[in-house]
Order: sequence, then C-alpha cells, then structure tokens
Amino acid sequence: MLDICLLGTAGMMPLPYRYLTSMMARYNGSSLMIDCGEATQIAVKKAGWSFHPIDIICFTHYHADHISGLPGMLLTMGNAERTQPLTLIGPKGLTRVVSALRVIAPELPFEVQCIEIAGTTQTFSLHGYEITAFQVNHNVLCYGYTVEIKRQGRFCVEQAQALSIPKNYWGILQKGEQVQYEGRVYTPDMVMGPQRKGIKVTYCTDTRPTESLIQNADNSDLFICEGMYAEKEKLAKAKQYKHMTFYEAAQAAKEANVQELWLTHFSPSLVHAEEYMPKVRKIFPHAQLGKDGKMVVLNFTEEANV
Amino acid sequence: MLDICLLGTAGMMPLPYRYLTSMMARYNGSSLMIDCGEATQIAVKKAGWSFHPIDIICFTHYHADHISGLPGMLLTMGNAERTQPLTLIGPKGLTRVVSALRVIAPELPFEVQCIEIAGTTQTFSLHGYEITAFQVNHNVLCYGYTVEIKRQGRFCVEQAQALSIPKNYWGILQKGEQVQYEGRVYTPDMVMGPQRKGIKVTYCTDTRPTESLIQNADNSDLFICEGMYAEKEKLAKAKQYKHMTFYEAAQAAKEANVQELWLTHFSPSLVHAEEYMPKVRKIFPHAQLGKDGKMVVLNFTEEANV
Repeated sequence: MLDICLLGTAGMMPLPYRYLTSMMARYNGSSLMIDCGEATQIAVKKAGWSFHPIDIICFTHYHADHISGLPGMLLTMGNAERTQPLTLIGPKGLTRVVSALRVIAPELPFEVQCIEIAGTTQTFSLHGYEITAFQVNHNVLCYGYTVEIKRQGRFCVEQAQALSIPKNYWGILQKGEQVQYEGRVYTPDMVMGPQRKGIKVTYCTDTRPTESLIQNADNSDLFICEGMYAEKEKLAKAKQYKHMTFYEAAQAAKEANVQELWLTHFSPSLVHAEEYMPKVRKIFPHAQLGKDGKMVVLNFTEEANV
Repeated sequence: MLDICLLGTAGMMPLPYRYLTSMMARYNGSSLMIDCGEATQIAVKKAGWSFHPIDIICFTHYHADHISGLPGMLLTMGNAERTQPLTLIGPKGLTRVVSALRVIAPELPFEVQCIEIAGTTQTFSLHGYEITAFQVNHNVLCYGYTVEIKRQGRFCVEQAQALSIPKNYWGILQKGEQVQYEGRVYTPDMVMGPQRKGIKVTYCTDTRPTESLIQNADNSDLFICEGMYAEKEKLAKAKQYKHMTFYEAAQAAKEANVQELWLTHFSPSLVHAEEYMPKVRKIFPHAQLGKDGKMVVLNFTEEANV
C-alpha cells in the first residue's frame, strides 16, 4: 500500500493557514517528496510524518515556492541522524541551484545526489517507486511527475509443479531472479502471470493543460493537480501566468480518466474555494478540494479471482 | 513610540507551534527586522504586520535558522509592490550569501543593498533607527544588535526669545539645522536642551555571555535574549555549542540593568519552558518567556516637568 499526504495547498507564498504545495509518499519504509517550499518541514511535522525515511525529493521547477524549504529540510534531515544518501531529481540546473542554496547548509552527515532530468520525459526506478517526470508548459522549464508502484503477476503454482521446480526455489523466481537446478535454467516468466494493476499517483503544478499531462496522468488512482484560480473570469490570468483554473484541471482529470482529483496550489487571493466545487464536479464528479495534511492510503486493487 | 514584535521563539528548526526567532520593529512608518528564518514571512502575516514598510533586515549570522526565509521574504515584499531599496545588514560575507540565496529570487522590483559589518562593533543611522551591531561569541562570526530611537533635547523657548530668533525659524533649529538671520548664524545647540532618554531595545541570540553583550545591552528598555536551554544540567551543552541557559541570560539582564528581559531561541527539545521561570526570576525579576507574536509598545519616558 502507498500512503499519500498533500502537505500543503498554497501557491506563490505560504500563509498562516495554508502551507506551500508539496506531496509526500510512503511505501515500504521509504518516503518520497515532491516539491519543498518554505515551511514544508513544518507541514511534515504537523502531518506527523517522519523526515528519516525521505530518500527522494523531486522538484517540478525552481520558483522559490517549490524549493525554498530545501536548505532547512536538509539540515533537519541531518539532525534526524540521516547518513544514507538522499536523491534529488529536478529539471536541468538542479546541481547549480542546490549548490547555491547550500551556502547556508554546507555540512551534512549524508550525501546529496542530484539527478537532472534529460529531455521531455524520463523514468527513474528508485526505492520501489517508478517515477516518471514529464515536461509541462509553464514560463520556466517545469515537469509533472507520476509515481507508480508496479505490481508483478501472480505466481502460478500449477505451472511450477508441472515444471517440477522444488518449492525452495519458488521465492527466488518470485523476486524476479532465475534459478539453475539439475542442469536446467528456470526464469521468472515460466511461473509468473502477466503484470497486475499497480498504484499510480500523478502530481502536477504550474502548467497550462498539456497533452503530456493527459497522457501521463492516464488512469491514475489519484491526480493531484494545480487549480490556481477558481473564478471563471480569471482564465485570462491563468493563460497569462501559465497556470490552470479549477475547471481546466477537472477537464484534464476527465480526459485522463483518473479515479480521483485533488485540487491544490491555490492563489493567495482564493479564500472560499469550496463554493466553486459544484461547478467543478459537473465536469469531473470525483474532484476534491485539497486541504493541508489531506491523506489517503492507496491499496492494490483486489481481483475477482483472489 | 516604537512597536516591537517577537515573531518567533524557536532555535535550530521551525516547529508547528513555534516559528524561528525573529524580531520586528515599527517606528514612524518604517519597519526593521532582525533575522529572517524559514517561515518568518508566515509569522509576519500571523502577527498582522505588513511587509510593505520593511526597510531594513539585520542578520546576526548565517546559520540557516536565521536567514533561510530571506528568498521568500524578498519575493513576498516584491509582490507587495515594493519599489524602494531594501537595506540588509550582516556579518562579513553578506553579499556572497545573499547572492547565492537569490538563485531562486533573481528578479525583484526593488534594489537590495548589502552592508557588511566592519570590525567588532559598528553603528548605522537608518530610517530613524540607530542600529549598533556588536560582536558576540558563537561558533561562527555572530553579532547582537541594539536598536535605539534617540530623543533630542527640549526646545528652550526662553533662550530663543532671549536671542530674538523669529518664531518661523524655531522649527528649522529643532530639526537640527542652522539658520542665518540678519547676518547672524544660529545653531541648534543655542536653543536645544541636552539629549533626553530615548528608547533602546537589544536583541541577541547564539552566543555565550560576553562583556560586549553586557555593555551594549546596558540600560535597554527591552532585552530580547536567547535562552537555548532551561534545564540547569544543560550548561555543559550550552558551553559546547556556544549558547546560553535561561539563567545566564537572566544574569546578563541583571548586569546590563535592563528594564525587561524576553527569553527566546528555545531548543526544539524544550517543551515546558514556563516551569523554569520562577528560578529565572530569582536572578532577574523582570524576566518573561518569549511567545510567538509577543508585542509591546515602548514609549519615550515622560519626564517630571512635562
């Protein structure tokens, strides 16, 4: 199972009642964060989550509201006695930006590894997460992310028995490794069924609606998407500053055929967001307003023949 | 009158219920801030104060908890449509640190002027504030600050009349400028009494007790001083990390003969600070525990013959 927490929902600047937009995932003892603005470390504490298992931080882009919390986060992770390396993923320029910000966090008890995304889309397999960065359309180079937990096929006992593979090798094959026994080689594909549906979360802020967003968000269990403006008359502003309205996000959710949409990255001027939701749900019924600290546990889908 | 707000009271890292230590002053339409850690901009909003009139930000040193909020603060000040220059004051290295942090705040609608403190003590007169930086004793170069509002002497009407200075020149002399009238030069000292007691606030974090601290805090109306540790047995830790205990701060307040002490910059491990205050007040009775958003209005002392 994959735990997701939307740590904050603000765009542009943090407010006393609204932390900057950031997402955190927990899976199998390893945590992943996307974006880390000013005060995100407070939001982590408020959510009751831990800094210690954060192994990966992904950045959508380098506007301050998405990365200004990094130096403090690194120091707090150091104070939590981290010694394992931390992986940072972000657009071109990551090493330069991180080096500059570390002027106030120069000494850490762990290594910081920077991976700069190459091209318009790139996939990384780290700590059990399959992370795909896909370029979107903002006024600076910006990426959205899908985070997937893949699920392998079912182990076919009948097939293993038919091939006379001893039971003590079954676990090895299930882990995806091959086995040699009495001069024969057994490979996982001999005993494993087709890959089953995993869990998929898509996170996207700071963009106009794009084809890459619809394609990558396709069939997500959860789609966390920016809705900078709720007021319909602010569409022109959304276009000018390369953001999205609530309705555009809902339309993207519909086209990508996602299970659920959480809106986030609200403009500081937006105060009564709930009032706009009935109109949003006319476009996409499973739309929810993001709230600071909103959590969900996503499980693998049970299948009929289990 | 001078308004003071202690925006936060945390040391090391911000917590959900405790912002990082920072002080803000308001005087005559101009605001001054000392230290700007992560989330200080949220604390300003929570206090209901404005970004717009902040003309000066002073930094004690460059540990992240005292400056990590600067990029976000600069952007928020820009969004508040600031166009006037902003003055930053801090230890040697300020220009380098600010330039590095501005990697995520490169474009601002106002000029940022950096003044690096020269030597062990330096005084600056800016926007009606007389600011003195004095070196203290931390594990990196660190300064405390006094912020004073000076008060000139009383205008002596009898003296002005005796010298036959026309009334329309009195205001000019009161402003400290000289006047020429019928071939004679009149200077302010001819009509102004001796300087009267002004208002003095001292702010000091991240140091062991020092002679410079006692000397500079001398006779302050308000002394905001770090008390990293309240537990008496943590004195060794305080010495090791170059911080102060509550009792050392109280002793400094007593020796400096201040009117009132506010303790701040608490260790994240300190949770029941109030319990230690009776012992603190045995050393210095006018000691108070700092609270996030604690404010006071300091007025010029009324004199008996007013």
